[in-house]
Amino acid sequence: MKVLVLTGMPGSGKSEAVKVAEEMGIPVHRMGDLVREMVMAKGFEVNRSNLASVGNSERKKLGADIWARRTVRTISKAPIVVIDGTRSLAEVDYFKKELGESLMVLAVHVSPWTRWQRISKRCREDDPRSFEELRERDAQELEWGLGEVIATADVMLLNEGPKGHLRGQMRRLLLDLGSSSSGRPRRTRGAAPGRLGAS
Amino acid sequence: MKVLVLTGMPGSGKSEAVKVAEEMGIPVHRMGDLVREMVMAKGFEVNRSNLASVGNSERKKLGADIWARRTVRTISKAPIVVIDGTRSLAEVDYFKKELGESLMVLAVHVSPWTRWQRISKRCREDDPRSFEELRERDAQELEWGLGEVIATADVMLLNEGPKGHLRGQMRRLLLDLGSSSSGRPRRTRGAAPGRLGAS
Repeated sequence: MKVLVLTGMPGSGKSEAVKVAEEMGIPVHRMGDLVREMVMAKGFEVNRSNLASVGNSERKKLGADIWARRTVRTISKAPIVVIDGTRSLAEVDYFKKELGESLMVLAVHVSPWTRWQRISKRCREDDPRSFEELRERDAQELEWGLGEVIATADVMLLNEGPKGHLRGQMRRLLLDLGSSSSGRPRRTRGAAPGRLGAS
Repeated sequence: MKVLVLTGMPGSGKSEAVKVAEEMGIPVHRMGDLVREMVMAKGFEVNRSNLASVGNSERKKLGADIWARRTVRTISKAPIVVIDGTRSLAEVDYFKKELGESLMVLAVHVSPWTRWQRISKRCREDDPRSFEELRERDAQELEWGLGEVIATADVMLLNEGPKGHLRGQMRRLLLDLGSSSSGRPRRTRGAAPGRLGAS
């Protein structure tokens, strides 16, 4: 089983990368879904503030990797599996321990200014209303160590260009993963082979 | 004055990017040089452990941005200036406050496994001796918030390929910066225009 742990800042285009995996029939486990279920089970409104509050309170109470531990329980075997929404190296370490050393961390990167330009166009209620608010939110998102996961990612996809560019990179990466039953996958343009490929 | 704050994990190829700037006659300020000077002034041997120890003890004593404050004092005006070696958003914030909101954070990214393969070939005395040691060192490097700087970089250069590829990206970026006296620089391939370009 090949495990792709997907990460990125809010507005980086992770959800578009997830869509590509789903369109290719690859199972995607969204860690955020588990948080959402708990927010609903507690009878709270599902909004950004309650999601952050429940997510963080569980981490503080039960450990930084609690959502990783709960996610692993939901994963069933498949040739490739995508896990979306990791926040810290504690989570990545847990995934490695449980799902195999050779998992690959994939980060999607976009500059803060481009993220702001995209977010400001989509007009979602919970989105930041200024560039400064986006930077403040970034600081909150980074609190559990998201930056460390991104900085040490095995593969970095750049999403500064049009949507199709990211989709193409993601598709090539997944095709390469699928075709490399063992050994090094073919090199994908714009994507660096991570430890999975090299091991 | 355009300020390019260069960052990346150890072994990411930052020093190659710095060389390109120097070859183009662009002044480069290495924050690490100030730490090195202090280590020598104290009569200690200049090695990784003493550099980290003096660097960290000054941060703990005088604030996370102490080396940024000292670096700013050494900077003289030039059309483009490169600052190498930032470790935290506290430093980036200080540079923005003192040198202008429009500075650009440039990160160089390489997967940990490729960094290990390159480091293991160069046989420097202070280098990690195994992949596991590299991961431990990474954790130390990330301690002050380096991951947050990388995750929120305005421009991300990928250095997974041959040396010439990074050099080419860096050169195009600097040429673009130089030619954009105002407004948006031309788009560089593989490089995302940051806030500097968009503002």
